[in-house]
Amino acid sequence: MNMLDLIYKKRNGEILQKEEIAFFVNAVTNNSVPDYQIAAFLMTIFFQKMNKHETANLTEAMMNSGDIVSLTEIDGVKVDKHSTGGVGDKTTIALGPMVAACGVPVAKMSGRGLGHTGGTIDKLEAFTGIKTDMSIDDFIQRVNDIQLAVAGQTSNLAPADKKLYALRDVTGTVDNISLIASSVMSKKLASGADAIVLDVKYGSGAFMKTSADAEELAALMVSIGEKLNRKIVALVTDMDQPLGYAIGNTLEVIEAINVLKGKGPEDVTRLCIELGSQILVLAEKTDSLSNARNMMKETINNGSALNKLKQFVQLQNGDTRLIDSEESFWSTKFQYNVIAKESGFVYSINAEYIGKAALALGAGRTTKDSVIDLNVGIILNKKRGEYVNANESIAIIYSNDNGLISEAEKWIEQAYHFNQDKPEEVEMIQKIIK
Amino acid sequence: MNMLDLIYKKRNGEILQKEEIAFFVNAVTNNSVPDYQIAAFLMTIFFQKMNKHETANLTEAMMNSGDIVSLTEIDGVKVDKHSTGGVGDKTTIALGPMVAACGVPVAKMSGRGLGHTGGTIDKLEAFTGIKTDMSIDDFIQRVNDIQLAVAGQTSNLAPADKKLYALRDVTGTVDNISLIASSVMSKKLASGADAIVLDVKYGSGAFMKTSADAEELAALMVSIGEKLNRKIVALVTDMDQPLGYAIGNTLEVIEAINVLKGKGPEDVTRLCIELGSQILVLAEKTDSLSNARNMMKETINNGSALNKLKQFVQLQNGDTRLIDSEESFWSTKFQYNVIAKESGFVYSINAEYIGKAALALGAGRTTKDSVIDLNVGIILNKKRGEYVNANESIAIIYSNDNGLISEAEKWIEQAYHFNQDKPEEVEMIQKIIK
Repeated sequence: MNMLDLIYKKRNGEILQKEEIAFFVNAVTNNSVPDYQIAAFLMTIFFQKMNKHETANLTEAMMNSGDIVSLTEIDGVKVDKHSTGGVGDKTTIALGPMVAACGVPVAKMSGRGLGHTGGTIDKLEAFTGIKTDMSIDDFIQRVNDIQLAVAGQTSNLAPADKKLYALRDVTGTVDNISLIASSVMSKKLASGADAIVLDVKYGSGAFMKTSADAEELAALMVSIGEKLNRKIVALVTDMDQPLGYAIGNTLEVIEAINVLKGKGPEDVTRLCIELGSQILVLAEKTDSLSNARNMMKETINNGSALNKLKQFVQLQNGDTRLIDSEESFWSTKFQYNVIAKESGFVYSINAEYIGKAALALGAGRTTKDSVIDLNVGIILNKKRGEYVNANESIAIIYSNDNGLISEAEKWIEQAYHFNQDKPEEVEMIQKIIK
Repeated sequence: MNMLDLIYKKRNGEILQKEEIAFFVNAVTNNSVPDYQIAAFLMTIFFQKMNKHETANLTEAMMNSGDIVSLTEIDGVKVDKHSTGGVGDKTTIALGPMVAACGVPVAKMSGRGLGHTGGTIDKLEAFTGIKTDMSIDDFIQRVNDIQLAVAGQTSNLAPADKKLYALRDVTGTVDNISLIASSVMSKKLASGADAIVLDVKYGSGAFMKTSADAEELAALMVSIGEKLNRKIVALVTDMDQPLGYAIGNTLEVIEAINVLKGKGPEDVTRLCIELGSQILVLAEKTDSLSNARNMMKETINNGSALNKLKQFVQLQNGDTRLIDSEESFWSTKFQYNVIAKESGFVYSINAEYIGKAALALGAGRTTKDSVIDLNVGIILNKKRGEYVNANESIAIIYSNDNGLISEAEKWIEQAYHFNQDKPEEVEMIQKIIK
């Protein structure tokens, strides 16, 4: 077997066998094939596609290319949640404590990564002093003690995916459904969860632009999970406007805290409850989704989720004062109102552009070495369907650098579209695939 | 402009602009883009194709990536001939002297290369002592003196093509018509000819397997030539069996000498006359192809082509005795008859297999560093349409190593197919495209 034969085979539209895919992934992991052959192969996959069996085999091989985290020392069914990424998505920070408060162990490994804002690990640093570096034993101990721990990905998880992802990024082969699905799933599966809830987003702020594409990706990931004997559910959700009102790191954490206090935005709260109730069912805490929804709501109403967050932050050395008295522990030098130039209903908010505004302010990373400003960001005052009068503020920019405001403002202005008719309501959860 | 944008543009099926293609070729030449991006781009070209304008722009950019040989110091219209390669193709060696004998300057730059036999430069070394390394001034002087010189490619011709060709070979992107056409034409155009006659072969011994594919390639190369203001004609010719009877280096040179003596195989002789008469017309020696054919035949009949060959070999320091008394200046340790196992008409001879037999004997190179045995090879005793009795010899193997004969024999036996009905005759020259 050699790489050139595999390129020709896929180029001619043939189905690759399990051992051929394993050969490829091994060669990637061991650096035994040159990058130009990997690049050519990735482009043949882009054009000729992989079927779901090939995709599952690719996922399994990438999963096996590095460490497999064992969470068997944790009591109960370990459920992981993964979002394909969106603008203003702070669900993990609220969802973790809610689920943990129901007694489901949440052993979350998370990353930093590139994007319009930081990853979960970055956002958590809004709790000054928080420590997310820990040994796997420590991690497991914490989960057993309080049902919730978040750690940075220190293990060598799916190194083949890491290498392939970097190459895809520079060879125009990112947007292939099999490569996306196998990349996400290989890391999730290597992280040791028994069951997985996926939040697959579509719309202007998501990788998948249409509901149909997101559904296809969701179905493929579910089929991979099943083939590799994991319980798995995927929600296909709307990301055609940002989730909630806050975009930025500390701003999003505050919004997540507000969810736990029962005063969060309706969409964020609902998404947390829906994702969480799927988790409770997979974790066998109940077999009824409607029971599960009530359990999740109860963690807000009785304060147990907020307490769980506090307990978790404290145990990982973070300053919990932000939880009790939000704004006083956070500020930026400049606040700037973005003013509506016309009256009308907000017809759409291009979430990608709002993400670019946040990135322009320094809320995210453009390269691995960028330094994030945790405090900057945007609070939207108006969301889709709301009426705006000319000269009313549609958003507030929080910045520490006066010179960055005008670019952010331009992106925000471009993101908003107005209409004299009220737009139809969009159901946030388009589909549940299991 | 950056490489990733170009990959996406072509991947999405868009047409690349002249300056975008030039950017790519410059980046290849200067090593300023990584091989993995070039590989991904080549694979997008394979799938999305290039139109003839893009192909001409690619050709021009590759032509300009290195030296452009100037032949303006040579009097007359400089016509070059190029064959896309076949088994037993010794036309250059007979055609050069024939055309030169008609007063058309033949300034031939040729290579060694890989293949079942050596390139023209290798074959010429059958004339012991021949020198093909020379300065460009020397080269031009010789052509002005005797209308014929052959030099190895010492100039830095189309280095972008060289690099791309090497990458195509290892990334499964060889067989794309635009990449093939631009590779051939960029080198030809950089060699300084005013007009070009192409021999585009199809069949079992050629790169293009069908007449239709060869025709498409020929038409594309003609369109490139026209766009870059060269006079150009392409012949689409049959290579479904080897050309002539001899395969091997010295063996082919002897067959070419026999053409000039008027006792060569009918097919080789005819192809030389047809290619040569196209050259005479392009070189404006006559405007009638039928006149041109007569002029070419006359160079055989009056011995002027044979004399031209002798003059050329002498002037480039080669031993001319092979020309006068062929076999006495050549021999191999072993001669082996391949015997027909059945009776019947030769229905087809797979030329690629005959090429593999020659390669197995050491007549060609598998890697750049292989050493060629000039004397080994094969003489076919029977060609397509001839009747063979069981136990009659169909071919003679000439070898210097007894151990190599059986592999060559196997290939030859596999190459021959017999039938009780005589096969229909195939017209060697399928099409002339201008």
